[in-house]
Amino acid sequence: MKQHQYRLNIPATGRGFYNITREVQAWVTETGIQTGMLNLFVQHTSCSLMVQENADPDVLRDMEMFMSRLVVDGDAEFLHRDEGDDDMSAHIRMALTQISLNVPVMGGQLGLGVWQAIYLYEHRTCALSRHVYLHVLGE
Amino acid sequence: MKQHQYRLNIPATGRGFYNITREVQAWVTETGIQTGMLNLFVQHTSCSLMVQENADPDVLRDMEMFMSRLVVDGDAEFLHRDEGDDDMSAHIRMALTQISLNVPVMGGQLGLGVWQAIYLYEHRTCALSRHVYLHVLGE
Amino acid sequence: MKQHQYRLNIPATGRGFYNITREVQAWVTETGIQTGMLNLFVQHTSCSLMVQENADPDVLRDMEMFMSRLVVDGDAEFLHRDEGDDDMSAHIRMALTQISLNVPVMGGQLGLGVWQAIYLYEHRTCALSRHVYLHVLGE
Repeated sequence: MKQHQYRLNIPATGRGFYNITREVQAWVTETGIQTGMLNLFVQHTSCSLMVQENADPDVLRDMEMFMSRLVVDGDAEFLHRDEGDDDMSAHIRMALTQISLNVPVMGGQLGLGVWQAIYLYEHRTCALSRHVYLHVLGE
Repeated sequence: MKQHQYRLNIPATGRGFYNITREVQAWVTETGIQTGMLNLFVQHTSCSLMVQENADPDVLRDMEMFMSRLVVDGDAEFLHRDEGDDDMSAHIRMALTQISLNVPVMGGQLGLGVWQAIYLYEHRTCALSRHVYLHVLGE
Repeated sequence: MKQHQYRLNIPATGRGFYNITREVQAWVTETGIQTGMLNLFVQHTSCSLMVQENADPDVLRDMEMFMSRLVVDGDAEFLHRDEGDDDMSAHIRMALTQISLNVPVMGGQLGLGVWQAIYLYEHRTCALSRHVYLHVLGE
């Protein structure tokens, strides 16, 4: 049984979804692990991870519409506003989604369904360099 | 250290909760793993996993009532409507709950609390055959 | 490859956030694991785990404000009310956050970002003794 760790850098350019499936699969392939467990971990508190449909871009658009309606930027009751109207809403969006995600590895491939992709979901409106830690354990 | 993988099939008959605790425990018992980590992974984008109370069925009924009020089927602002009014709402319900769940294994048993059960939470209203991948690593 | 398990006890004194980062790190240090994967698992259905900002306490205050507005205690449509107005709302708050969390271990340290802390998020208003199972696998 072996394990490998890697820091994936994602240059996010503002709120929205960044498909990282290909980069993650490429790294798993490099490690040579055939059967195992992959973990993705976000080291931030204002972006998150989401497995979501990879086909119709309207799904991502509707997802963002729903989130922006549920968690209103600049909500009048927020006390924490240090970095602007998208600051506290980003913390809440992160809390309602995932910062840690486990995906099984089978035959050297991520065990994703046909319609699944892994996205970094950026909640801040500004451009930020984001890090996702990858850890795989298997053989 | 050993690992095992298995595809659990769940014939869902429409929106609601399907208790899969017994099937999952039965498979873990078969593997012979005494101490380890179990992962459940859903290969779909319109159903999810939820650990919830196993005693009063009103808890599941109230949970579903809350979700259907929070994420309205056929919301007028949804663009993605390919498969009907429950299509986009299912993607959002999935995103607000879990598609990947880790549970420790202790003495050959799932380390669940007395009141916990693991449910597949189906969000589509039609009948669908669902798959949950199980992966256990331990000894 | 080795694994260790431990039950962390948290004497919660009512609804709110309990920072458990230090206790979790102390236990990981004790195990001697340098590189590996840590899992935290809550054996309850009315409290949960949250990674959130560790700096400005207003973030936690705003998070709780948002949750209490989203999931209203004593909602008139709840059927499950056995233990009071915060009973069913606690089950829903749990379902929208995490009961199982994976964090990579690097150089003997939790791989948390600079601004991240791990909190037990208690959703019941009464005092309760809570258990979080820790499992680490690595070397």
